[in-house]
Amino acid sequence: MKTLNIASIPGDGVGKEIMPEAIRVLEKVAQVHGGLQFKFEEFPYSCDYYLKHGAMMPEDGMDRLSQFDSVFLGAVGDASKVPDHISLWGLLLKIRQEFQQEINIRPAKLLKGINSKLADPKDFDIVVVRENSEGEYSSIGGRIFHDDNEIAIQNNVFSKRATKQAMNIAFDLASKRKGLVTSATKSNGIFHAMPFWDEIFEEISEKHPNIKSESKHIDALAAYFITHPHELDVVVGSNLFGDILSDVGAAIMGSIGVAPSANLNLNGKYPSMFEPVHGSAPDIVGKGIANPIGQIWTAKMLLEFNGEANIAEHLLKVIEAVTADGYQTPDLGGKYKMTEVTDEIIKRLGQ
Amino acid sequence: MKTLNIASIPGDGVGKEIMPEAIRVLEKVAQVHGGLQFKFEEFPYSCDYYLKHGAMMPEDGMDRLSQFDSVFLGAVGDASKVPDHISLWGLLLKIRQEFQQEINIRPAKLLKGINSKLADPKDFDIVVVRENSEGEYSSIGGRIFHDDNEIAIQNNVFSKRATKQAMNIAFDLASKRKGLVTSATKSNGIFHAMPFWDEIFEEISEKHPNIKSESKHIDALAAYFITHPHELDVVVGSNLFGDILSDVGAAIMGSIGVAPSANLNLNGKYPSMFEPVHGSAPDIVGKGIANPIGQIWTAKMLLEFNGEANIAEHLLKVIEAVTADGYQTPDLGGKYKMTEVTDEIIKRLGQ
Ligand SMILES: CC(C)[C@H](C(=O)O)[C@@H](O)C(=O)O
Ligand SMILES: CC(C)[C@H](C(=O)O)[C@@H](O)C(=O)O
Repeated sequence: MKTLNIASIPGDGVGKEIMPEAIRVLEKVAQVHGGLQFKFEEFPYSCDYYLKHGAMMPEDGMDRLSQFDSVFLGAVGDASKVPDHISLWGLLLKIRQEFQQEINIRPAKLLKGINSKLADPKDFDIVVVRENSEGEYSSIGGRIFHDDNEIAIQNNVFSKRATKQAMNIAFDLASKRKGLVTSATKSNGIFHAMPFWDEIFEEISEKHPNIKSESKHIDALAAYFITHPHELDVVVGSNLFGDILSDVGAAIMGSIGVAPSANLNLNGKYPSMFEPVHGSAPDIVGKGIANPIGQIWTAKMLLEFNGEANIAEHLLKVIEAVTADGYQTPDLGGKYKMTEVTDEIIKRLGQ
Repeated sequence: MKTLNIASIPGDGVGKEIMPEAIRVLEKVAQVHGGLQFKFEEFPYSCDYYLKHGAMMPEDGMDRLSQFDSVFLGAVGDASKVPDHISLWGLLLKIRQEFQQEINIRPAKLLKGINSKLADPKDFDIVVVRENSEGEYSSIGGRIFHDDNEIAIQNNVFSKRATKQAMNIAFDLASKRKGLVTSATKSNGIFHAMPFWDEIFEEISEKHPNIKSESKHIDALAAYFITHPHELDVVVGSNLFGDILSDVGAAIMGSIGVAPSANLNLNGKYPSMFEPVHGSAPDIVGKGIANPIGQIWTAKMLLEFNGEANIAEHLLKVIEAVTADGYQTPDLGGKYKMTEVTDEIIKRLGQ
C-alpha cells in the first residue's frame, strides 16, 4: 500500500469550502483504485490565524510542512482582514520560495461542455510554465523621501539558473506535446531583465532544434490568448508574466474557478504544493456556489506529480464527463451547487 | 485659420503603410470643417534609419520634434533589424520620457459592426489610463556574474508624484463617464511598489467620494476584461500593467489593429504624441491589408487633445459608420483592403 502524506491548508474564503470537496474526491479515488491511501493533516494557516497569532503560520510552520509528501492548498488572502502582501508573503509565497518550488505548471484547456468566454475558442490546450521563485516577486527594494516626493523602488531579480530551468522544463514538455514553446517577453520595454531572458531563451532554443520556438511580448501574447489560443502549446513566462497569462488562460477556459496549478520542487529537498489558480473569493463565501473543479483538477495534478499519472488521467476524464453533462456552478452559467458537482464526480469515479 | 504643425514618424513595417492613410483622412477633415489646417513634416526615424546611421534618430532629433504641436507616430520596432530594447528606447520610449508624456490614454470600446472575440461582449466602453513615464520601464539595473551564475537586476521606480497624477486623471475622466475607477494592482506579489501604489490610490479615492473606486490584481483584472468588460469604466495602471491591459482591451475589441492611444504631455513644455496600440506587424507588410483604423482613430485623439473635440467626435462617428457597414480588413474577418477602408471613411467625411 502506497501512502501519500498530505498537508492540507484550506486557507481563506472559498478555500475552506472547496478543500473538503477535493479531499472527498481523493478519498474516493483511493478507494476505487486500491493500493493507494492518503493521510491528510490540516493546518489552519490563514488570515484568521494571523488575526489570532500575529503571523500567518507559527515559527515551526515550515518545518512541520516539510515532513509531508505534498502541500495541498486552497486559497490564501483576504484583504479585508490582512493586507495582501503580508498574507501572501507570509504563507503562499513563503512556501513557494523556501520550499524551492521553482516551477509552476498551469494548464489552460477547455473542458467539454463548458462555455468559453470566447466567441470561437476552437480546441485550445495550453500549458503555462511559470518561473516561480524570483523575477518580479522579490522583497528587495524599499522607499525613500516623504510626502509627495516619496518614491518606491522594486528590484526584480532574474537568475540565469532559474530562467534556464523554467525554459528547459518548457522544452521538455513541448517535446511530449505539440512541439512549440512560446516565450513571454517584454524586451522592448523592460530594459535589463527581458533582453537577458531573451538571450537565455535563444540559447536554450538552439539546443532543441526539433522544437519550434517563438517569442512574443507579454502585451501581445495576452491578446493572443484571446485571438489565437489554439495556436499555442507550451508558454514559458517569468513569475509575473506566468501569473497574468495563467489567469487569462483561466478566463478563456470559462471561469477562473476551474484552473489548477502545481508548484514543483525539483531538487527533492522539500514537498511540492498544489493549489488552484483562483483566489479566496470572499464575495461568494457561504453561498455554496464555489466552483470545486479548480481544487479537484489540482488534486489531479497532485496525483500526477506523485507518480500516479494513470489515476490522474482517469480523474480528469471523470471531471470532463461531469462538465460535459452540464453539472456546472453559476460562474460557468450552470445551476448546480458546489457539493452537487463534487457528488457527481464521486458517483462517476465509482462507476 | 488654425494651423496644427504635426511631426509624422511612420516608423517601421505597417507604420509606413497606415501613416499616409491617416494623413489623407486628416487632410479631408480639415477640408470639410474649414478653419483648420495641418502642416505635416515627415521624419524617417526607424530601424532602417538605425541601420544607416547607427542611431534611431540624429543628435538633434528631439530638438527638432519639440518644435511641433504634436508627434504622430505609426509603429516602431522590427526585431529582425534592430533589437527591440534598442529601437524602442531610442525612439518611442525616449520621446515618451524626454517629452514628459506621463499619461497614456487608451480607449477600449467596441465599434459597431465589429465582431468581438468574446462570446457575449455586451456593450463595453473602457478607458485605460496608463502611467507612461516610470515604473517597470526604467533603465536602472544591470547584470553581474558570468556563465550560469549570471543575474540581471531590473529596478522599477514608482514616484508618488507621477502615480498620483495618473490616478487624478483617471478620477477626472470617470467623473465625466460612468463614475468608476478600477486600479490595477499586484500588491499581493510585488512587495514594495504595489502596496505603495495601493496606498496612493486609497488616498486619491478618499478625495473623490462621488466616484466609486476598486482595486483588482492585474492577473484577475486581465481575466475580468474577458469575463466582465461591461462592468469597467476607467482603469488606471502602471506603465506595464497599462500596457498589458490595453492590448487585452484591443483583443476584446476584435483586433489590435483598431486600438488608438494618446501620450499626453501635461505641463505644456513638449508636444504630445499619438500612436496606435499595435506594433509594426512585419508579417503583413506589403500586402495592403493593414488595418488603418488604429491610426485613424489615433488621428481622432490627436484632434481631441488639440482642442477639436467636436471634429474628433464627428470623425469617430464616421469610422464607426464605416465599420458598421462592413468595411473591414482581414484581421477583423473582413475582405477589404487598407485603402478601401480609408477611402470609405474619406468619402463619408465629405457627405
Ligand atoms: C513597443 C513597446 C515599448 C510599447 C510599450 O510597451 O509601451 C508598446 O507595447 C505600447 O504599448 O505602446
Ligand atoms: C496570490 C498571489 C500572490 C498569487 C501570485 O501572484 O502568484 C496568485 O495570483 C497566483 O497566481 O497563485
